[in-house]
Amino acid sequence: MTAHPDHNKAGAGRTVISVDAMGGDMGPATVVAGIAKSARKNPRIGFILHGRKAELEPLVAKRKYLSDCVVIRDAPDVVSMEDKPSHVIRHGKDTSMWSALESVRNGEATVCVSCGNTGALMMMSTLRLRRLPGIYRPAIAVMWPSRNPQGFNVLLDGGADIRADAKDLMQYALMGTSYARNGFGVVRPRIGLLNVGTEEHKGRSELKEAYDLISANARTADFDFVGFVEGRDLPGDTCDVIITDGFTGNVALKTGEGTATLIAELLREAFKYSPLSRLASLLAYTSLQRLKKRIDPRQVNGGVFLGLNGTVVKSHGAADATGVSAAVRLAFQLAETGFSEKLAARVASASLPTQDADTEEDGGKI
Amino acid sequence: MTAHPDHNKAGAGRTVISVDAMGGDMGPATVVAGIAKSARKNPRIGFILHGRKAELEPLVAKRKYLSDCVVIRDAPDVVSMEDKPSHVIRHGKDTSMWSALESVRNGEATVCVSCGNTGALMMMSTLRLRRLPGIYRPAIAVMWPSRNPQGFNVLLDGGADIRADAKDLMQYALMGTSYARNGFGVVRPRIGLLNVGTEEHKGRSELKEAYDLISANARTADFDFVGFVEGRDLPGDTCDVIITDGFTGNVALKTGEGTATLIAELLREAFKYSPLSRLASLLAYTSLQRLKKRIDPRQVNGGVFLGLNGTVVKSHGAADATGVSAAVRLAFQLAETGFSEKLAARVASASLPTQDADTEEDGGKI
Repeated sequence: MTAHPDHNKAGAGRTVISVDAMGGDMGPATVVAGIAKSARKNPRIGFILHGRKAELEPLVAKRKYLSDCVVIRDAPDVVSMEDKPSHVIRHGKDTSMWSALESVRNGEATVCVSCGNTGALMMMSTLRLRRLPGIYRPAIAVMWPSRNPQGFNVLLDGGADIRADAKDLMQYALMGTSYARNGFGVVRPRIGLLNVGTEEHKGRSELKEAYDLISANARTADFDFVGFVEGRDLPGDTCDVIITDGFTGNVALKTGEGTATLIAELLREAFKYSPLSRLASLLAYTSLQRLKKRIDPRQVNGGVFLGLNGTVVKSHGAADATGVSAAVRLAFQLAETGFSEKLAARVASASLPTQDADTEEDGGKI
Repeated sequence: MTAHPDHNKAGAGRTVISVDAMGGDMGPATVVAGIAKSARKNPRIGFILHGRKAELEPLVAKRKYLSDCVVIRDAPDVVSMEDKPSHVIRHGKDTSMWSALESVRNGEATVCVSCGNTGALMMMSTLRLRRLPGIYRPAIAVMWPSRNPQGFNVLLDGGADIRADAKDLMQYALMGTSYARNGFGVVRPRIGLLNVGTEEHKGRSELKEAYDLISANARTADFDFVGFVEGRDLPGDTCDVIITDGFTGNVALKTGEGTATLIAELLREAFKYSPLSRLASLLAYTSLQRLKKRIDPRQVNGGVFLGLNGTVVKSHGAADATGVSAAVRLAFQLAETGFSEKLAARVASASLPTQDADTEEDGGKI
C-alpha cells in the first residue's frame, strides 16, 4: 500500500489502471495507442505501464494525451503466447505481466489490463492476487453481443476452470450479478443457468442442485433468476448473465465467434460476386460499418477474471488499439465503482447450505 | 420383412423412405409439399407416409409428382411438441411417429424422416429400433455450415445423451466416419475431438483417454485423426467431423444458431436504416439470397440418429418444405449407400481394449 515516488504522476486525482504493455500479438505500440485513445476520451484515468522501459518511453512520448498520466515500470521479460503457464509461474518474476499484477497486489491500482497469454495470466493472477475469501474457483466473465438493451450478455465461466460444481455455479451467479451491476449499470440482472433443455429427462445432476442454490440466493443478492436457459439465449434477450462451467462456456463462445467470422467472410464474398453487388456494397458501406461495430469482438472483448483480490481484464491477444481502449474503459468503470470490494461483500453474505435451498416461490428466505 | 400389399406402389424399383407426416410445427401440408419437391427432383424415391389418412389423402392427391410413389399408412394419433417422451413411449402406439419407425423396424424402409418432438423421437427410436450390437449410446449427428469443400461439418453428439465416456466418444468417431463417407462422399474424413485448448493443464481426463482410443482406431477405420479441436473449428476447415458429448454439442450448436440469427436480424436492420441502404439492399438482393442459402439452417437441418438398427433423420420442428426436402435427400442418400449395414460392420470391427490404445505414431496396430 506504499505510494511509489513516481506514482503521483499517474495517481493524482485519477483512477489508476495497471497495464501490461507486452505479450499481446500486436506488440507494445498497439497497447500504447489503445491507452492513448482512452486518455483522450477520459482525462480521469491514470496508467501504470509495465514493460521494457527503453521500448515504451519513445512510444509514450509520441502521444500527447499520455504526457501527464502515465508512469512506466521497467520489466525486462515478456510472457509469450507459447509459454506454458506452469513455467511462467516459476520463472516469470521479471515479466511485465507479473509486474502489472504486482501493482494491484500492493494497492497502487485495483484493476489490471493485459493482452497476454490467458492461461499464464489466469494462473499468475490466482497465485499473486489470491482468491477472495470463500471463493473456490475464480471465473472469466465474457461479454457476448445480444438483443439486450445493453447490447450484450455476460457469460461466466468462459474458461478459467474446466469444472464447476453446484456451489461454484452459485458463486458465479453472485459474481455475475455484481459484475453486470457495477460494470454495466444493470440494476437487477437476470441470471440464467445454461442447460440443454427443460425436459424432465435432460440435464446433469449438478445443474439441478445449482438451480436450487441459485434460487435460494436470488432474493438476498437482488437478482432475477430466470432458471435454465439454452445456447440460443446467449445472443438472446431472456437474461443478462449466463452461468456455466468453463469447459462448456469456452466451447460456446468459440463456436459463436467462429460462426460470426464465417458469416462475415461469406458476406464479403457475396458482395464481391458481381458488379451490381459491388455497387451495392458501396451504397451499404455505412450500414455495414454500423453492423460491424455492433458485433465487433474488439468492442466486447473484455474477458474479466472474477473472484480474486483485485480485478484482471484480459483483452484478446490480437486486440488492436480499439480493443485495448475498450478493455481500459471497462477496467476504469470497474475500478471507479469499487467493484472488487462489493463483490467480496456479496460472496461473504451468500447463503450456502444446500439443505435450506428452496424454490424461488418460497417467500420465507431473506 | 414381409411385403405389404400396398408396398409396391412406393417400392417398385425405388428406394423407400418412411416419413412421419405429423407432429412438425408446420403441419402435414408442409411435409407433403416437401416430399413433392423431392419426388420432382428424384424419381427414384418412394415414400411410405404415416399420419391421418383423411388429412393426408387430399394433400397427396393435389401433387402430381406424388401420384405413383406414395403409400399412406393411417395413424390416428400425433406426438405433440409438448408431450413428455416417457409418456409417449407408454401411450404412443397409435401415433404417426411410432408407425413411421415401424416401417424401418419391419424392413420396408431403412431410413425414417420426422419433424416431430426430438426427445420422444430419440427415445422411441432407441426402444423400437434398438441399439446396434456393441453401441452403448446412440448419437445425433448434426450438420453445421463451415469452410470445408462440402460446405459443412458434422458434429456428434448434438444432444442425444448428455454424457459420454471415452469409449462412447471413440464410437462417435467411427459413426461420424461412416456417416460422412456414405452421406456426403467424404472418402477419408478428418476427425477432431472437441476440447478447450491444447495446453497441458487443460482438458478433462475422459478426453485424454478418448484421444488415445480414437488414435488407436484411425488406421483400421480409415479416418484422419486431427486431435483436439476447439469451438471455432466447428465452422472452420480443420476437420470434417467433430466429436463431443451431447451436452457440450447441444450448447455449441444452439449458441452458433442463435448467433447466426442475431447477425441476420441486425443485417436486416442495417439495410433498413436509410434510403441509401434500402437501395443497396435491393441491388444486393441476389448476393444476400445466395449467402442466405449457404448458411440457411433449413438446408443443413438433418440431424441424424446414429447407432440404431436403421437410421432416423430428424428434421427441424419448424422445417418448411425446403427443409423437409433436404432431410429426404439426405435420407435417400443414406438408404442408397447401405449406410446402416456399413456402420454396423465398422463398429463391430473396432478395437476397444484401452490397454492396447497407442498413439497414432505407433505402426503396430491394424
